[in-house]
Amino acid sequence: MEVKRLKGGVTEAEGFLAAGVRAGIRPRGLDLALLCCEDGAVPSAGAFTTSLTRAAPVILTAKHLRRERRLGAIVANSGCANSFTAERGMEDARRMAELTAELLGLKVHQVGVASTGMIGKYLPMEKVERGIREAVTKLSSSRRASREAARAILTTDRSPKEVAVSVETEDGTAVTIAGMAKGAGMIRPRLKTATMLVFLTTDARADPLFLRSCLQESLDRSLNMITVDNDTSTNDMVLMMASGRAGNRELRQRDEGFQRGLDFVLTELAKMIVRGAEGATRMMEIRVKNARRGEARKAALTVAGSNLLKAALFGGDPNWGRIVAALGYSGARFDPRKLTLKVKSRRGEVVLVEKGRPVGGPELPEAVEVMREKEVVFEIDLGEEGGEEATAWGCDLSYDYVRINSRYRS
Amino acid sequence: MEVKRLKGGVTEAEGFLAAGVRAGIRPRGLDLALLCCEDGAVPSAGAFTTSLTRAAPVILTAKHLRRERRLGAIVANSGCANSFTAERGMEDARRMAELTAELLGLKVHQVGVASTGMIGKYLPMEKVERGIREAVTKLSSSRRASREAARAILTTDRSPKEVAVSVETEDGTAVTIAGMAKGAGMIRPRLKTATMLVFLTTDARADPLFLRSCLQESLDRSLNMITVDNDTSTNDMVLMMASGRAGNRELRQRDEGFQRGLDFVLTELAKMIVRGAEGATRMMEIRVKNARRGEARKAALTVAGSNLLKAALFGGDPNWGRIVAALGYSGARFDPRKLTLKVKSRRGEVVLVEKGRPVGGPELPEAVEVMREKEVVFEIDLGEEGGEEATAWGCDLSYDYVRINSRYRS
Repeated sequence: MEVKRLKGGVTEAEGFLAAGVRAGIRPRGLDLALLCCEDGAVPSAGAFTTSLTRAAPVILTAKHLRRERRLGAIVANSGCANSFTAERGMEDARRMAELTAELLGLKVHQVGVASTGMIGKYLPMEKVERGIREAVTKLSSSRRASREAARAILTTDRSPKEVAVSVETEDGTAVTIAGMAKGAGMIRPRLKTATMLVFLTTDARADPLFLRSCLQESLDRSLNMITVDNDTSTNDMVLMMASGRAGNRELRQRDEGFQRGLDFVLTELAKMIVRGAEGATRMMEIRVKNARRGEARKAALTVAGSNLLKAALFGGDPNWGRIVAALGYSGARFDPRKLTLKVKSRRGEVVLVEKGRPVGGPELPEAVEVMREKEVVFEIDLGEEGGEEATAWGCDLSYDYVRINSRYRS
Repeated sequence: MEVKRLKGGVTEAEGFLAAGVRAGIRPRGLDLALLCCEDGAVPSAGAFTTSLTRAAPVILTAKHLRRERRLGAIVANSGCANSFTAERGMEDARRMAELTAELLGLKVHQVGVASTGMIGKYLPMEKVERGIREAVTKLSSSRRASREAARAILTTDRSPKEVAVSVETEDGTAVTIAGMAKGAGMIRPRLKTATMLVFLTTDARADPLFLRSCLQESLDRSLNMITVDNDTSTNDMVLMMASGRAGNRELRQRDEGFQRGLDFVLTELAKMIVRGAEGATRMMEIRVKNARRGEARKAALTVAGSNLLKAALFGGDPNWGRIVAALGYSGARFDPRKLTLKVKSRRGEVVLVEKGRPVGGPELPEAVEVMREKEVVFEIDLGEEGGEEATAWGCDLSYDYVRINSRYRS
């Protein structure tokens, strides 16, 4: 049940074409991406932000998916979120879908639309339309095309985020699962059946309801477990299309190989988002063990989101009192006398708290040493019955995060 | 029903003495405060952090108060939170109460104990005991003594926080209500019947249960409505002692004058904490109107706590999309099409969103102008039935917040 990592991105799965072009929405760089399936509309699934102020493209795409759970193309722009733009925003999103459908021979509801960037601004539709027309002419299954599409959806991201893997389904067929993502700030996804966009492709044959349940299961272990700034976006969206070209027996219920492959792709993309987050210099992994049922995830996410711990991480300071404080207000129930806390990195492992007792105070030199790494793990054993586990990922709070977000314009 | 502001702090109320000394717990400055009532133990009330990882002095003082709801003295140190310090921490807190009680002729449970500073460190008890002995010899009702006590509880705070007012109770007696506070980081109090310490004095005659309900009502409009970094502390504590020297008819049920006075004192202290927060250069007031029942407070607090909005405030950037995003994930239910949003300051008022429609986009020059002030108000009208209102206070997220908290040691 091996997950084999491949080079490239969304075009590694058989049957998919991609393009990234410059439409002129952002001051510079590629800003319009198109992803489509050569076979027309195929089984698809999506997950959308649970925000009450969902952007026009989120509202529209969710509606499109509900209709027949099949997409043939996804059109996405950066530089403008088309969020909180009233009726005009809805019309603009619809026009993006209409034009893409017309040019690719699809029905309007077979097109997913996504936008990311500034909230409260209208889309420059002439530029967007020109961009869509150009993108259609550039569609290709090359790695370069996949890379350009992955670049066209970025805003404050430092680099494109692509992952592709090969796994075997239970009937022994090799299938490919691939994805691209953007996201660097306003990141605390709360996705339910993602300013984060994730587009996934697979050549597996799969039923759309299977895809949806498989996607939700992976999301709850990956994108829904990351936080950059605890700010949930109005535009988060994850879309997945399955071309069926791998020729496996149609996936209709749990498939271990496929699930592991999807877990891998989404977890890697989630970690890429955290590593490349606005201003981030370090990543932390928060592993919670032995929590009560239903409480491991909130404990892990609350710790990962603590501004004070994030600032300490930036300074390489093992100030674990901030972990204890965050656990205290997380809402998870535990007995502080049973708490064991460790910090780990490639440089080793140091016990900070052992069954409720501080080990050597908050200024342990060994812990400072362990924290001199780009990636640090805090292991939190709550010592409760139930044995529930969860892992969350977060990044540090740096001067650059403040700089970027005190003058964000794009 | 006028609230008259007085100079000075906790010693303005008749019957109270204070002292602030240097015990040597912090690297420099005053670090041990003592506040006591000349009449021995008097009706008192308290509110404590609802964190699950409450510090030893919080656990001890809550227990002391429950016993007979009377305190005669409060001893507090900065430089060490005595939090997450297991049994030894509890013994140290108890020893602080015992020594104070012995020197002042009180019972142990008539002494409140508070600590603030680093989590996970033990108190240097020899220094603490020397400090308590010295403080007892310096007790005074002077303004200077009150000021020194207020300074001795500070950590990263920029200045001492004292407020005193005179109000009339319903029977026409003039009573004084006064308080001191500390707090600059790890501030998102969730107090229930406060790394924030608030000590209040009044010369009103009052029943302790009256004090408690009066205190909770004020807290829910003041300290429980501020956030610096969304990090709730393990050591938050508010204590109030009533000497009864004003000679009013004993307060046993709602008294409009007293409640307004207490509201004023606690709201002023809350705003002082936000204005003086770690790295803060600007304060924002978030006023939510026309929310559904039970939802105004969470909407206001979520917006005040948004890292992205805090960074925008630092940059003076009216990026209201971040307010919309925060409202979207706040958990408050509303129809985005009814949302009206304004920014106000001493320079004027600008409508940003009118009934769901952006007014002039997110880069409105008039809004930039309004934001060139130290104090900015965002008024959010959710347009829902129920007409519930709430006000929260927050500050900006600056380079200095990151600097202070990436190398916090005290």
